[in-house]
This record gives sequence, C-alpha cells and structure tokens, in this order.
Amino acid sequence: MAAHKIAVIPGDGIGTEVVPEGLKVLDAVGRKFGIDYEFTHFDWSCERYKDTGEFMPKDGIEQLSGHDAIFLGAVGWPGVPDHVSLWGLLIPIRREFDQYVNLRPVRLFEGVRSPLADRKPGEIDYYVVRENCEGEYSAMGGRHNRGTEHDMAIQETVFTRRGVDRVMKFAFELAAKRGKHVTSATKSNGIIHTMPFWDERFEEMKKSFPDFKTDQFHIDILTAHFVQHPDWFDVVVASNLFGDILSDLGPATTGTIAIAPSANMNPERKYPSMFEPVHGSAPDIAGKGICNPIGQIWSGAMMLQHLGHQEAHDAILVAIEEVLKGGGPKTPDLGGQAKTSDLGNAIAEAI
Amino acid sequence: MAAHKIAVIPGDGIGTEVVPEGLKVLDAVGRKFGIDYEFTHFDWSCERYKDTGEFMPKDGIEQLSGHDAIFLGAVGWPGVPDHVSLWGLLIPIRREFDQYVNLRPVRLFEGVRSPLADRKPGEIDYYVVRENCEGEYSAMGGRHNRGTEHDMAIQETVFTRRGVDRVMKFAFELAAKRGKHVTSATKSNGIIHTMPFWDERFEEMKKSFPDFKTDQFHIDILTAHFVQHPDWFDVVVASNLFGDILSDLGPATTGTIAIAPSANMNPERKYPSMFEPVHGSAPDIAGKGICNPIGQIWSGAMMLQHLGHQEAHDAILVAIEEVLKGGGPKTPDLGGQAKTSDLGNAIAEAI
Ligand SMILES: CC(C)[C@H](C(=O)O)[C@@H](O)C(=O)O
Ligand SMILES: CC(C)[C@H](C(=O)O)[C@@H](O)C(=O)O
Repeated sequence: MAAHKIAVIPGDGIGTEVVPEGLKVLDAVGRKFGIDYEFTHFDWSCERYKDTGEFMPKDGIEQLSGHDAIFLGAVGWPGVPDHVSLWGLLIPIRREFDQYVNLRPVRLFEGVRSPLADRKPGEIDYYVVRENCEGEYSAMGGRHNRGTEHDMAIQETVFTRRGVDRVMKFAFELAAKRGKHVTSATKSNGIIHTMPFWDERFEEMKKSFPDFKTDQFHIDILTAHFVQHPDWFDVVVASNLFGDILSDLGPATTGTIAIAPSANMNPERKYPSMFEPVHGSAPDIAGKGICNPIGQIWSGAMMLQHLGHQEAHDAILVAIEEVLKGGGPKTPDLGGQAKTSDLGNAIAEAI
Repeated sequence: MAAHKIAVIPGDGIGTEVVPEGLKVLDAVGRKFGIDYEFTHFDWSCERYKDTGEFMPKDGIEQLSGHDAIFLGAVGWPGVPDHVSLWGLLIPIRREFDQYVNLRPVRLFEGVRSPLADRKPGEIDYYVVRENCEGEYSAMGGRHNRGTEHDMAIQETVFTRRGVDRVMKFAFELAAKRGKHVTSATKSNGIIHTMPFWDERFEEMKKSFPDFKTDQFHIDILTAHFVQHPDWFDVVVASNLFGDILSDLGPATTGTIAIAPSANMNPERKYPSMFEPVHGSAPDIAGKGICNPIGQIWSGAMMLQHLGHQEAHDAILVAIEEVLKGGGPKTPDLGGQAKTSDLGNAIAEAI
C-alpha cells in the first residue's frame, strides 16, 4: 500500500504539545502493522495570523486537498477573536471538504474517575453524530445600526433536506453496527422553523430502519439525561450546535474532556477528512507539558480506521485502555502528575 | 393590602397535579402572613385546543392582563405538536407581557442525592438568568421547496442591544446581592453574528460594575463545567436557547429537575409576570399522582417575592428545606414512594 499522505496542523497552544504524541503513536502502530505515512507539516495558527494577517495561505484548501487526511491539534489564542480564528481555518476546512459528519465517541474507561456518582465503564458508551456543514453555524446574517442604541444582530440558521438526511443516515448505519438505537436531539417546541423540519426528516429516516429503537428529546432535557441516564444512549444524532454541546458535555461525564477525539468526515472519501481532539488550545495550561494527549492519540486511531486500518485503530484503543486502567502515568486532569510525553510514551510502548 | 389577583393555568399532564399543591402552600403561607389572593382559573390546555382549535381565546392576553401574576403548571401533550402548543400559549404570554427575564435558581438541598459524586449542599447554588423574549426563539423564517427533495428550513435568530442589555443588567444587579460574580454563556467562535455581539454587550456592561468578577465560556465547555465545577458559578447570564439548556442541566445536577422553579419576569411590573416549574407536562408519569410538586411550590414562592412578600417567600423555602432534609415524604424522583399530595401537605404543614 502506498504511504498515506497526512497533512499535520498542530495549530495553537496545547495543540502543539499533543500532536507530537499523536504522531509518536501513529509511528508505533505503523511499524507494527506496516503502515507508511508521508507527513506534511503546516504552521497555520494564530501566530501566523498575527504575522501575516491570514490563517492559511490563499491556496490553503488546495494545498490540503492532495492529502488523504488532515491531523489537526487545536486552533485559537487570546488576542485573536475566536470567530476570526475558527472561521479562518477550522470551519472552512470542514465545509470545503464537505466533512458533513463530525463523529465523537463518548466512553468511560476503567481507571478514570467519572464525576457522576457510581458510574462504571460500560454504562457510558455512545456516539454523538454531529452535523458539521450547515445548521446554526452560518455566515448568513449581520448587524444593523452597528454601534448605535438600536444596534442588532441577526443570524440565519439553515437546514436542508440533503444536509439533514445524510447525517441521519450515517447515524442509523453506525447504530446498525452497535445497539440499533438512535436518539435525535431536537428543540421543536422552541425553534419553530428548523427543528420541526429536523423532526420530520427523522420520522422519514426511521422508516428505512424499521427494527431500530428510536427516540427524541428536546436539547434541554437531553443534557439532563446525559447526566442522569448516560446508559440510555447508543447513537445520538444532532445538529451542528446541539452536537457541539453534547460532545463536550458527554466527555465531561467520563471524567475529562481531554480524552475525547473527533472525526470530521467526508464518508464518501471524495475529500480528505480531518481528525482532531474535542478540546481546544487551552491557554491556561499551554506551555507546561502537562496536557493529556489521549484525545489527539485517539483521533489518530479514528484516522487510521477511516483509512482502512481497523486493526491498527483497535491496537491503539487497547493500548489506551491498558495504560488508563493499569498504574500507568496520569496527567493532572486524570489526577496524576505525569507529563504529556510520559503518557504518550506509555501508549506508544503498549503497542 | 388588597388581594392579589392571580391567574391560574394548570395546563396539561402533571401541570394539573402540581398546581393544586402550589395553591395549597400559597394558602398556608397566606394565612400565616395575612396575604389575600383572588384566584381565577383558566382551562387553557391541549385538551381545550383539541376541542376548540385554540389554546386561549382570542382575547386571552387581555383576560390575563388584569392580573398581578400568572401561576402556570405545564403545557404540552402528545398528539399536539409541541411548537403548536408552546407558540399558542407559553411563548405569546412571555412576549406580550415583556417578561424578558427568565430567572431560574439551581440549588442542591440537603437530603437530595446529587448524581454528581461527592457534591454537598452549598457547592451547587447559582442562578441562571435567561433572556426570554428574543434570540433563538423567533418566528422569522420558514420553509422553501416544502415537501420536495430541495426542501429547506431557515430561521433567524435576533439579538437587539436593548434586549441583551436589559437582561445582562438584571444579572449584574442580582449578583450584586450575592457573590458579585457573573458568567456569560456564549458561542462566539461558532455563531459569528449574534454571539460576538452578545460578547460586546457583556464587555460594555462590565464597565458599570467594576468590582465584579466576570468570566465567559462557550456553551459547549460551559455545560462540561456545570458537571465538573458547579461550585464555580454564582449568576450565569444566557440567551434564550442557552439559558433553556443550562436551566435543565443545572437542576439535573441537583438530583431532580422536578424541584426547579422559574420566574418569567417583567421586572418593571408594567405587565404581569408568570411563574412556572421548569419541568414539562411529563406524559409518562401524568395521572398517577406521583410527581414532585416542589418546582411548582417554589415557583409560588418566587411569585410572592416578586409581589413584595419576601418573608413569605423565605418561609416557603425553609419549609421545603426542612421537609427535604428531614425524614419527610419523598416522591419517586427523590427515591421514595410518596404521593404528590403527601409532599404538598408536608410542606404546607411545615409553614
Ligand atoms: C416548552 C419550551 C418551549 C420551554 C422553552 O424552551 O422555553 C421550556 O423548555 C422552558 O424551559 O420553559
Ligand atoms: C472551536 C469551535 C468553533 C468548534 C465548534 O464549535 O465546532 C469546537 O467547539 C468543536 O467542537 O470542534
């Protein structure tokens, strides 16, 4: 098999600390299973923006398009407004490459303490399937009377049948390989144009999967259920914003959001997919070498799975499990004192 | 003092079971403190809608407008689309009466088990101040190509300077009586027109309260902090949708959302305010007489506070505390077997 061409974008803050650990583990598993990579590093970040006024060069998307996958750390830094950094890099990549599924596993591991009382591994184990290209994240809208007493801001949320159907289909197909149970996150009682439409499409999609268990909850009570009844869920399908919320809340219930990975996928593989941890650049702990690299490492595992290496994916997951449950190194978020690289090394060695 | 004119709308499902308990406690505290009421009952509900095609009569708002306050149970029932029931009753009342603050306390009581490990009363004790008249809940937008392959739905979120400023001001003034700490819920990295505007207004409002502690979090990580660090919060100010989510999630971390009250307030008292529990009509447990009436009873306390009876409010809160921490009756959501009326009676007697 030819080498996989991987674009590597460490980004900002702890992104630059966890990406090397991710690469370390990719190397280890590559040696074991005979997988070759060709890595290209990009320095696209807030620093670059401060120097040049742009996050990526004009032909940035074109430069990435020759790759099989994108391995991203985190973007964003104090001093650069978040909407500038994110709409300058992360969101255009998701959209230009039609990465319409943002897949985010939520799982409680043995050896990690959940903030929920008495929850055991196995009781929290589900996927959030987040729509990633439309919905509440839109560039439509703007300001009226800016700077005056009558200032106002309007923003349009856009849901299309094509956009909703394809992410729901992905969710059902994922559930087919798991518990055949799909939960829809809605808010059709308050958000009266887009969310009733979302519900209609869910009703329609259910018909193609007649033996599945399905349910739906309004986003407000759904967040409550994530805390009170995490064992109710198998696959949760959600809009861009609701999926964003649920995929931070879910990992928080598993003890640390630092272990949560994500796959921004173009399932048809027409364009490169992008793999990144759920956490951000974490300015508060950046530069200390104490952040947890598991979210990045697990994102690497998802990348290998997407590229067809199921066994390599599984080997990384087993290594993560073993290190977490054994007396292995623990970073501060896990209650220990280990360094980022200690945890990365331990996982690489376990492989 | 003249009798307070209270409009009572039990609504649907458990709304009709908890409202009588709320009235029972209002009566008890009224006898104790010499407060008189004049209650008018309205049968506005999904049942009425099924019979007549409307939730409230054409002059419904006018009928309510002569009252000092509205005491609402819950609205919504299977068979009536949620957006029809809520936009037919609850949301018009909030808007026509300019109830622009939705105030929702979150508090862990002694005697109630939190789903969070090792959290003690005192560690969860904050207010969500929710914008209640604009934002993500809007009637602007609609469908295009309905029913075709190219079907799409658009909805406009609207934030105005007046709307944002007044709810933020309320939040700061509330915090002035508490810990002088205000947290803003935002998502200015993803929602690029309205949320950066929200942030701008927060920056501006801070200037009028120079000795306050302030912070802001994106809604995704904020939900994680509600679970991992509930002790970080004092007053959280949020948009209509974000406030809706946070005020279900917060109470879930205190053991049961059934105890959570809310006050839909027009702080200037130009129009009647409305008091209702955070929970809905709960079709799954309705009709069994086992639902927890504390959310409704506490909403009654907030109503009395708004009407100027601080001591009556406090007496109800003390009674709720005592019954919860003592060996008093517990409904199933609290881990007991008591009936709705057992709990209502116990609180009324404690007063
Ligand atoms: C029923 C629904 C429209 C309502 C809301 O979202 O405002 C409810 O969830 C609430 O919190 O009062
Ligand atoms: C940084 C931000 C724009 C982004 C999002 O909201 O999509 C992040 O929270 C995520 O979940 O990937």
